[in-house]
Amino acid sequence: MILFGDRLMEKTQVKIDIEDRAYQFGDGIYEVIRVYNGQPFYLNEHLTRLEKSAKAIRLPLPYSINKMESLLQQLLEQSSITDGKIYLQISRGISPRNHAFPLNAKPILVAYLDAIDRPVTKLEHGISAITTADLRWLRCDIKSLNLLPAVLAKQEAVDQGCEEALLVRDEKITEGSSSNVFFVQQGKLITHPSNHLILHGITRHIAIELAHQLKIPIVYQALSQQQLEQIDECFITSTTVEICPVVQIDGKSVGNGKPGPITRRLQQAFAEIIPAPTNV
Amino acid sequence: MILFGDRLMEKTQVKIDIEDRAYQFGDGIYEVIRVYNGQPFYLNEHLTRLEKSAKAIRLPLPYSINKMESLLQQLLEQSSITDGKIYLQISRGISPRNHAFPLNAKPILVAYLDAIDRPVTKLEHGISAITTADLRWLRCDIKSLNLLPAVLAKQEAVDQGCEEALLVRDEKITEGSSSNVFFVQQGKLITHPSNHLILHGITRHIAIELAHQLKIPIVYQALSQQQLEQIDECFITSTTVEICPVVQIDGKSVGNGKPGPITRRLQQAFAEIIPAPTNV
Repeated sequence: MILFGDRLMEKTQVKIDIEDRAYQFGDGIYEVIRVYNGQPFYLNEHLTRLEKSAKAIRLPLPYSINKMESLLQQLLEQSSITDGKIYLQISRGISPRNHAFPLNAKPILVAYLDAIDRPVTKLEHGISAITTADLRWLRCDIKSLNLLPAVLAKQEAVDQGCEEALLVRDEKITEGSSSNVFFVQQGKLITHPSNHLILHGITRHIAIELAHQLKIPIVYQALSQQQLEQIDECFITSTTVEICPVVQIDGKSVGNGKPGPITRRLQQAFAEIIPAPTNV
Repeated sequence: MILFGDRLMEKTQVKIDIEDRAYQFGDGIYEVIRVYNGQPFYLNEHLTRLEKSAKAIRLPLPYSINKMESLLQQLLEQSSITDGKIYLQISRGISPRNHAFPLNAKPILVAYLDAIDRPVTKLEHGISAITTADLRWLRCDIKSLNLLPAVLAKQEAVDQGCEEALLVRDEKITEGSSSNVFFVQQGKLITHPSNHLILHGITRHIAIELAHQLKIPIVYQALSQQQLEQIDECFITSTTVEICPVVQIDGKSVGNGKPGPITRRLQQAFAEIIPAPTNV
């Protein structure tokens, strides 16, 4: 079932208009929310970020956060899926094509739930990444539907047999094409500052909180591509990939080519806070 | 009627899928083609650019240029509209949401024709513009559906009672939010070089050709915001706005605040090549 506006309906009944601004301009925002054991994970944080993205692109949310929570709860309740992800997007609405905001369009919420598993193999063995140019716009902190540069970067990684592309702007690594990135050097975590050049990931935020609890020092700094040679560990974070080791970058092993001890400690701490039986 | 794939259908019959990549990623390209007196204007140039955009985002076109020409001809023939614009977009297709290219999705073409008039008042009296930050990605030469920064810039102009926003990156003016921009200084035309920071507009190209014919010298150079003080004339170009004078920028008059003589010569030359009775 699809949540379309405030109604649940069959996918075949949902009809997106050709003049929906999400379709013609990518004029909208989105969230991906993990569901573990029937519970949406960090739901409030996702909806708060959605509200921030909406404000940044001046899109009036069609419902309050409370109302959206209750709609998503209905979506979950009618489904037999207990472990999955909710995809939720809000478009500025339908209007004859014109760049400026439409006067009378109503923002449209759509959301649906898909079953997914925890990526246990990747979590255990790590993934490989490439580096490529960060061609995105200068408001990467907004979770908007303008995802073409991320799509192209991800495909470049796939073409090279890798799972993620680390993006490089002005010689500095910003984040992954659909994840944030952390490095470990001499016992310290290094991650890009939360500015307009990266998405302020919820899982990134969780990893930082866990690092604080584990007394792992954090440096908020952009790592240059050259500094990759000096790192001991690397991991990416995202709602679906959780805290996932990166063991190879551009064909070179990170550290000894295996997930490192700090990554492992954070993964373990993460597994402990999710409301589901863990497989790692 | 809407051209949906290779079939003409009523708008109410067209159903865009919720998992269309144009809807979720802005993963697609588009063109806007002017129709004057029943004739698509510079159609071949538009379709050639579409082909370039497709190649740049690695989207296989669903039809050859010849086939698309014949489909658009059918769209025109069944309509009573003789003066309007064709909006045409191609999405990478429908597939469960995942950044990397889908393996089996088929690109989807949609196109439709709307009646529009030549913007005679603007062409005669000129428009006002603001300057604002160019936040777009680094492949503005690709005519992609990722238009959110252009939408936000245009709205900023509208909020200030203006018609266009001139975008400024690294202190240089690149182009308008939905147009290219030209300046006139001491009898010379100045426009941004055709690189990855601007769209290579068809009307920009026509204006350049006309300038050559009229022996107006052209300098391909980015104008800085400070240099705005020294310009004598300014105009924007686009498929729908044609060659349109800009008489005020950020509240200050350009030249004497009226469309200048070089702009007028180019407008006149443009009016002579369009296959319709002219109103200017």
